[in-house]
Amino acid sequence: MEWQRIVKEIAIETESKIILLILDGLGDLPLEGHTALEAAHKPHLDDLAAKSACGLTDPVYRGITPGSGPAHLALFGYDPCQYILGRGILEALGVGVEVGKKDLMARGNFASLKDGLIIDRRAGRISTSANENLCRKLNASLKRREGFQISLFPGKEHRFVVKFSGEGFSDALSDADPQIPGKPRAYTQPLSGEAVDTAKMVNDFMDEATAILSDSSPANTILLRGFSKLPSIPTMSELYKLKPAAIAHYPMYMGLAKLIGMTILHPEEGLSSLFDTVERNYSEFNFFYIHFKKTDSAGEDGNFEAKKAAIEEVDTYMPRLLSLQPEVLVVTSDHSTPCLLKSHSWHPNPFLLYSQVCQPDKVQIFTEKECSQGYLGRFQAVYAMPLMLAHALKLKKYGA
Amino acid sequence: MEWQRIVKEIAIETESKIILLILDGLGDLPLEGHTALEAAHKPHLDDLAAKSACGLTDPVYRGITPGSGPAHLALFGYDPCQYILGRGILEALGVGVEVGKKDLMARGNFASLKDGLIIDRRAGRISTSANENLCRKLNASLKRREGFQISLFPGKEHRFVVKFSGEGFSDALSDADPQIPGKPRAYTQPLSGEAVDTAKMVNDFMDEATAILSDSSPANTILLRGFSKLPSIPTMSELYKLKPAAIAHYPMYMGLAKLIGMTILHPEEGLSSLFDTVERNYSEFNFFYIHFKKTDSAGEDGNFEAKKAAIEEVDTYMPRLLSLQPEVLVVTSDHSTPCLLKSHSWHPNPFLLYSQVCQPDKVQIFTEKECSQGYLGRFQAVYAMPLMLAHALKLKKYGA
Repeated sequence: MEWQRIVKEIAIETESKIILLILDGLGDLPLEGHTALEAAHKPHLDDLAAKSACGLTDPVYRGITPGSGPAHLALFGYDPCQYILGRGILEALGVGVEVGKKDLMARGNFASLKDGLIIDRRAGRISTSANENLCRKLNASLKRREGFQISLFPGKEHRFVVKFSGEGFSDALSDADPQIPGKPRAYTQPLSGEAVDTAKMVNDFMDEATAILSDSSPANTILLRGFSKLPSIPTMSELYKLKPAAIAHYPMYMGLAKLIGMTILHPEEGLSSLFDTVERNYSEFNFFYIHFKKTDSAGEDGNFEAKKAAIEEVDTYMPRLLSLQPEVLVVTSDHSTPCLLKSHSWHPNPFLLYSQVCQPDKVQIFTEKECSQGYLGRFQAVYAMPLMLAHALKLKKYGA
Repeated sequence: MEWQRIVKEIAIETESKIILLILDGLGDLPLEGHTALEAAHKPHLDDLAAKSACGLTDPVYRGITPGSGPAHLALFGYDPCQYILGRGILEALGVGVEVGKKDLMARGNFASLKDGLIIDRRAGRISTSANENLCRKLNASLKRREGFQISLFPGKEHRFVVKFSGEGFSDALSDADPQIPGKPRAYTQPLSGEAVDTAKMVNDFMDEATAILSDSSPANTILLRGFSKLPSIPTMSELYKLKPAAIAHYPMYMGLAKLIGMTILHPEEGLSSLFDTVERNYSEFNFFYIHFKKTDSAGEDGNFEAKKAAIEEVDTYMPRLLSLQPEVLVVTSDHSTPCLLKSHSWHPNPFLLYSQVCQPDKVQIFTEKECSQGYLGRFQAVYAMPLMLAHALKLKKYGA
């Protein structure tokens, strides 16, 4: 990305502060005539929008619905098409597993095997506690490997994460998953010459796990997908000369932030604690990423009232953020999660940038429709980062 | 750049005329509630905006503050990330030095040396006339070189430009500048194998210059920076089949225009002369670049009233331009220079395109905010050129 190369060249270290508040899945579609953002009583956000430059962002490209990984990476200034986080890595971050530079990660399912065929790819969605027991059993029973280690970490229901810690593993591996019930167990296939040994090692592990689980019906085998290692990714400090901190409640967002060099601050439970944590650490950092989850969860549930309430709740904390007098405050979402669709969507995100040196526009309230009339126009989310840096006076002139 | 390749393929030569009026640094931020453009009484520009298609341009990328070089190149349709003008070249253009294809240019400082250390990198900011005397002395005293020539050209105060005219010079050279006072003189280092001989030649010159200046305290040595040669750059006539002319008062803009093949017309002093010059030469060319500097100078000074007055002054000349009945008239800026910041900024430029075949929009007055609502939307400044060519009916259909 050309612009990232330029920004790296002209970025300077300053004391000025940037706060990026991500209201996950905020963008919405009308239900009975209005979106959650239009229906919510949110005087502080509206007041802020009136003083801000507003716009709409596309996380990837128009029409592309992003996962949380690409959507967040874009807002941090990383081209989500260049920096790819594998499924195994994202699952590991979500479960809160530490991932080293050489570790190979995969997502796993406990599954049911009968007469040599996979009859249920999810082993009847066993309980999370059964899952925990099975992971414990496997971790204790697996034979010791020479020079590397295999560990399982339970997720929810039938899902787990497996980590292969060692040297020289390749992630050029096909999924070890027959995809459709009624087929035999599938082995992983190497997708390049350098992955031959890794594939053999993985398949040996899968056989051993199936042997250990032989008496654990219905969860008497495993499937593995999304083999992946950490991508090579520069830190925010290398690229933008920032001292960034992340304040989030969920492991996925903390893991992702850690990957790009943010310091992870651990708030207590509850919304208030997100803002307490910013205030307590305000002098130590100059970039604060705050992650608010409820707007997304409510959207995924199709719960319009809950989404509206979440917006109204977060609105009451805006004066606290403003009283810190950050040079730049951005409020936006990583992707839309319309209640109508109960899932992530491709619709662009309302975006508000407040700064003493922004160009305020005609937008008077913070809604999807109003933001489409804003001065910042409609832009790809990766440009949020140069805009934030510029308004914090953290970029020198390009060329003479 | 893909689009430039396409435009080159479909451009045709026609008689139709394009006038591009650049009000340097026009874009502004509100001071006491309004920008200079909002405050100015400019009935002709507003009337024109009402009949035009309007928009906002980003010179490079959102958030990137450009120097005058990249900002102008973009408006002429040259990707400012692809065509890089070195500091030495730009300084030479600014001082009005002729630069040949093989010449190596550098910016220089007269500096003060004491006991082997640089104690002042600017030699106490000596007067421009003292500078002129020193350049004359050096040009007269330097030994004659075999096969090449070295010439110094005075700039303002302690600054000068040096030209190395010869064959086979490389500009892959580090700055010969210790950057911080209290350090010894620095020599240039070759940054690639092919620059070894050039570095030796430059360092020999620096030693000789220092010997010649030994009695000229405080300006008894030199520093050199920004070694650069002309980039390889196609002309506007090659790319767009235009016969372009530049009308500007300042050497930098004339030099840059010459670089891309414009004919330089030399107006007399005063604003009126810019327009006299267009009128006098109107039949000879079909693209006219007019450069108006005062809006930028006023912005750099933070002088809101002067910026407003400059806009009001240029407004009175719009009827003269319109009476020429150009097929396309564009009024815009190369970059913003808000009075609030007293410097170039990253804020986008108001842009107005008037033509018989433009789509007039709802914009009724020519301001930053109104242009953000225009039909052209927000776009990268390089696309100004295909838009101008298209509205002048100078582009054939692409594909069948």
